[in-house]
Amino acid sequence: MASRESEITDYFAKARQLDAKDFPIGIGDDMAQMNLALDSELLITTDMLLDGTHFDTSLHSLEEIAYKSMAVNLSDCAAMATLPFAAVVSVALPRSFSGEDLKELHSGILKAADMFGCSLIGGDITSWQDEAGRLAVNIAMLSKRGNSYPVKRSTAQVGDIVCVTGDLGGSLSGSHLSFVPRVKEALRLTELAKINSMMDISDGLGSDIRHICRLSGVGAILDAQAIPISSAAKESANPLESALCDGEDFELLFTVSPEEFEKLEEKWDLPVNITAIGRITKDEAIEIVGIDGNKSPLVAYGYDHLRGKD
Amino acid sequence: MASRESEITDYFAKARQLDAKDFPIGIGDDMAQMNLALDSELLITTDMLLDGTHFDTSLHSLEEIAYKSMAVNLSDCAAMATLPFAAVVSVALPRSFSGEDLKELHSGILKAADMFGCSLIGGDITSWQDEAGRLAVNIAMLSKRGNSYPVKRSTAQVGDIVCVTGDLGGSLSGSHLSFVPRVKEALRLTELAKINSMMDISDGLGSDIRHICRLSGVGAILDAQAIPISSAAKESANPLESALCDGEDFELLFTVSPEEFEKLEEKWDLPVNITAIGRITKDEAIEIVGIDGNKSPLVAYGYDHLRGKD
Repeated sequence: MASRESEITDYFAKARQLDAKDFPIGIGDDMAQMNLALDSELLITTDMLLDGTHFDTSLHSLEEIAYKSMAVNLSDCAAMATLPFAAVVSVALPRSFSGEDLKELHSGILKAADMFGCSLIGGDITSWQDEAGRLAVNIAMLSKRGNSYPVKRSTAQVGDIVCVTGDLGGSLSGSHLSFVPRVKEALRLTELAKINSMMDISDGLGSDIRHICRLSGVGAILDAQAIPISSAAKESANPLESALCDGEDFELLFTVSPEEFEKLEEKWDLPVNITAIGRITKDEAIEIVGIDGNKSPLVAYGYDHLRGKD
Repeated sequence: MASRESEITDYFAKARQLDAKDFPIGIGDDMAQMNLALDSELLITTDMLLDGTHFDTSLHSLEEIAYKSMAVNLSDCAAMATLPFAAVVSVALPRSFSGEDLKELHSGILKAADMFGCSLIGGDITSWQDEAGRLAVNIAMLSKRGNSYPVKRSTAQVGDIVCVTGDLGGSLSGSHLSFVPRVKEALRLTELAKINSMMDISDGLGSDIRHICRLSGVGAILDAQAIPISSAAKESANPLESALCDGEDFELLFTVSPEEFEKLEEKWDLPVNITAIGRITKDEAIEIVGIDGNKSPLVAYGYDHLRGKD
């Protein structure tokens, strides 16, 4: 008699057959195998999402939760302008979970994966022993080189223009569950110009610009008037603060030389906007020119995964 | 000001410098990058371990817990006779966790990784928002081809001898936290003989032999008298049942033709024993010849990750 675990594993294996040439060993064995024509870089990212921290099972559907779990990993691939191609998913299930719930999770995972041709090739299903255990989803994703070397956080250059894709702020009103990771935009950016540094905005612009500056040994000055604010953020009490520190925008934050930025302005042809919002500076301060025209230090608010909101 | 998260990330990055040639982008960026001389298969596994299910933070040290989390993934690499080379680790932390706790986890991870030259190249640290959230550790591990094609579960042949490494049962008395994954043994097995099918024993022999049989479309008959029983299991009320269904032995379960088994018997030179415990049969029944010499169906006990103990 097959166990419940075997039944579920079989369901996943049959629901989406893997290409046997690329993935000769898939779901159901101790490991998944990939046959890669790998003449360049291989990259890996991993993200753990928790009920009550990154999603809320009392408010969000399991399909939305699973979609988000894949999408944040795809966004990491976008952050370095790489091509996602395979993922493994682990889930820690509450005691109350059913097989139907797992199928709904599976459906959300495939929905995100299919947008960019990323294959789900394996995973692990386990469950909490006590009633208090809440849903956790971990994904590890592999990607390979896109149009350029993987773009790092640590290579911003003094004089670079600081840019973002899309609009910022207000993600909690819904976009944090349904955003489209900027994989295509990142690949197009690196096709059109030399991008010096890049990351995706997960903690909030006000916090994430610090990572690029710290790792690159530079500073930045942002222009509050230039920051593109989402319609959801515009409805909040303080739209600029919302755009700076709500987080989970999953837009791209990148820096390019002024010459390369001109190329981008001229040739950019995707529907998602790119906007210049500041400059990389030599001294390590991070400042913002406010709506009132006054320059002040950019307060380090934003999300810290160990502290919560500052 | 660096955030607490940045401080911890910096600590990990500095505690163990990665070889910049093999791993040009490591901890601290959106993804980790590997430069592989990959002319063969690439494999990936992932395992999620939970407080109260796979370990108990009220009884076990964080170093033990982290060691086990790596070791179960290394054991998956062993199960296919592949060479582990890189891992990413995600942790979901209880609210009460400190930076010192993270360092202890890190130390346990390195202890296991260092046994087999596997590099820790990235990860994700997050924390539960409510007080009830318990520690979860997820690892995804990459490996490459060892001495043979990766050995699958689904390729056992009728007439094969069923073998195990080491002794079985009684893991809860301690070995489930401190076992040495059979990476070296698996590589030596595939060097000396053609291994037809293999997996590691995590749910218990009585349950895991079913996976090989089901996926290979064969049956098996085991000899109770031949099953190597650990000294811990011998102290239990029913040593044979303990060896069959305690689980978490993390020994290798494999099948070889009688001719190849002869080669193994003759040439095996590692301190861990290999023992023949049965045969693969044509009809799909799974049976056991008991200590009393009577044949009976092998009851499907053992650990099911979704049901718990049968």
